[in-house]
Amino acid sequence: MLRTIEEKKPLIHHLTNTVTINDCANMTLALGGSPVMADDLLEVEEMVALADAVVLNTGTLNPAMREAQLLAGKTANRLGKPIILDPVGAGATTLRTDFMKELMQQIQFTVIKGNASEIKTLLGQATTTKGVDVAEGESLDFHAVRAFAAESNQVIVVTGPVDFVTDGQHELHLDVGTKRLGQVTGTGCMTASLIATLLGAGYARFEAAALGTFLMGKAGEQADEKKGIGDFRTGLFNAVSLMTEETLREVHFNEA
Amino acid sequence: MLRTIEEKKPLIHHLTNTVTINDCANMTLALGGSPVMADDLLEVEEMVALADAVVLNTGTLNPAMREAQLLAGKTANRLGKPIILDPVGAGATTLRTDFMKELMQQIQFTVIKGNASEIKTLLGQATTTKGVDVAEGESLDFHAVRAFAAESNQVIVVTGPVDFVTDGQHELHLDVGTKRLGQVTGTGCMTASLIATLLGAGYARFEAAALGTFLMGKAGEQADEKKGIGDFRTGLFNAVSLMTEETLREVHFNEA
Amino acid sequence: MLRTIEEKKPLIHHLTNTVTINDCANMTLALGGSPVMADDLLEVEEMVALADAVVLNTGTLNPAMREAQLLAGKTANRLGKPIILDPVGAGATTLRTDFMKELMQQIQFTVIKGNASEIKTLLGQATTTKGVDVAEGESLDFHAVRAFAAESNQVIVVTGPVDFVTDGQHELHLDVGTKRLGQVTGTGCMTASLIATLLGAGYARFEAAALGTFLMGKAGEQADEKKGIGDFRTGLFNAVSLMTEETLREVHFNEA
Repeated sequence: MLRTIEEKKPLIHHLTNTVTINDCANMTLALGGSPVMADDLLEVEEMVALADAVVLNTGTLNPAMREAQLLAGKTANRLGKPIILDPVGAGATTLRTDFMKELMQQIQFTVIKGNASEIKTLLGQATTTKGVDVAEGESLDFHAVRAFAAESNQVIVVTGPVDFVTDGQHELHLDVGTKRLGQVTGTGCMTASLIATLLGAGYARFEAAALGTFLMGKAGEQADEKKGIGDFRTGLFNAVSLMTEETLREVHFNEA
Repeated sequence: MLRTIEEKKPLIHHLTNTVTINDCANMTLALGGSPVMADDLLEVEEMVALADAVVLNTGTLNPAMREAQLLAGKTANRLGKPIILDPVGAGATTLRTDFMKELMQQIQFTVIKGNASEIKTLLGQATTTKGVDVAEGESLDFHAVRAFAAESNQVIVVTGPVDFVTDGQHELHLDVGTKRLGQVTGTGCMTASLIATLLGAGYARFEAAALGTFLMGKAGEQADEKKGIGDFRTGLFNAVSLMTEETLREVHFNEA
Repeated sequence: MLRTIEEKKPLIHHLTNTVTINDCANMTLALGGSPVMADDLLEVEEMVALADAVVLNTGTLNPAMREAQLLAGKTANRLGKPIILDPVGAGATTLRTDFMKELMQQIQFTVIKGNASEIKTLLGQATTTKGVDVAEGESLDFHAVRAFAAESNQVIVVTGPVDFVTDGQHELHLDVGTKRLGQVTGTGCMTASLIATLLGAGYARFEAAALGTFLMGKAGEQADEKKGIGDFRTGLFNAVSLMTEETLREVHFNEA
């Protein structure tokens, strides 16, 4: 738990999937934030107003959730709240690809974080993804991502063996993590929660995006000594809860 | 697992949130009960009729869930089944506060368990809560809680650093637990499951409320030796599954 | 993680309950598969088309989920995709029993896996089940199960102290596992995910049904050294993630 975050205890409002919702709540707490999940249309706007940051995650959709996410996003924009999009499964089905377009047209995100297949879909590029995992050997056009970040004024995080973070002007390649992070469901979703918690605590958008991504990779490295995947997963929560400000200083931000 | 509970294996019907629903099921099992979660309007009444106790938890709402909870509550009352309310997030949004009022007007609860912010909201008092965590420094008017319990004929549990349990005539202050219970999502929800399991096994309402609350605090103390929050969380389930009748005897019930 | 499965990384589409959905995803990953959960009616057909196997689990129902499961099942049949039914709670309420009938009438399953109470309900036999756990002392008419498997051309798995697997011609009794598997929610659901992952990786239906059931029992035995139920649960994921092809060879398939 980071002391600076624990003191502020930012409220992180999630509109997210039913698969990893518990993990996202616990990861937010592990870093020192306070998670809340509320997607009843009758309370979405009020909850966004209370929140310090908002997460939209498209992992499991239904008509009410789609409507609630659009409402939450527009409310966050109106009130100037940081908002992050985790476009889970973008490219896998027409519904997901179309809904992402709708989200992107109607909402200005602070940060968008996805794997290469998902980000390529947002850029309108072809992808061979099936499901919610990144397609094997998916390649990325860094130039296009950078241009998209600059034009749309959003920080883009592309997670992968080496994570890529750009706001169009600054960028970082983070060579951190372990392949095993892909063997536990929701490590991507939890990364979005970490970024949102940092945003909610007042970190600037590029720093929050980079540090949240770095923290999950670092947690993976620290948990990697565990042999079984059950222990590895528990280790991720241990690691984040024991992180200190010291760890954040391992990320070096350079001017563009 | 308590032998007396395991032998009866009470069926605990939950209408609860999607964040901690798995934890509530596993905690019910850890104490020796049998959890069931069913909120399809077409089966709520039948499932309540099968159940030994019912839990309503307002952590994540939607129109169908709200309707199902009202139906489950009224059915439990009609059939004389014990029913517990966990008013998660009461006070945070108008929807939640209004829905709590509706629940309280239409349903007679056996036990209501919440944090200070939530219980104050039920009493019609102002609170500074945001989200589902208790507001910092929230103070409690014990007299008002006691009067509310007596008038409404419901046992009220206010969880906190020292838990307070009252039926208006008897009361207990339980100085048990650890601050870290607030660093894992759902420990409050799980406390409601423990109370419901005790109710379903035949414990009287005041005893069930006090013992269920005590068990979670005790589990927290036993798990507290773990450094990371992932291990601490796993330790809570270990602890409850290894509880014996001996532990329950640590709670001393005095006459009013 | 089984290398043969990891190489193929079959996509396993789940339409399942909100209680154990995270466990099913993680168990699919632990064996080497790629889980996806999608029940929005607008994407069900497309996701089934992408999937290598489909799981229908009736643990928590609602009108949209019921419609989505019927659609997914019919689509799987039309496209010749393996599909497994986990009829959670069959027999407990009229809704569940009726919905199972509807599923069985409209969909041809590759494998149906349930406890004795659930399978008896599918056979039209009386059961004393309440909730989602098997009724105490539930007895099983092996002859009827065998006949049902043969007539319906579906592999039937009846889980219990000794698991029974039959396709009407071949059969296996698997004396594997531990009583403690019943003390963690979702071990049955996760067994269905293991079977589906094997089906998706290309195993023949009888082998997949037997091996998936065996793997969960074996994982239970390996985790059984753990005292507390939290550690036992984590141990299940460890065990499956560390399984090798060697373990599968412990199951001896005899000709009928």
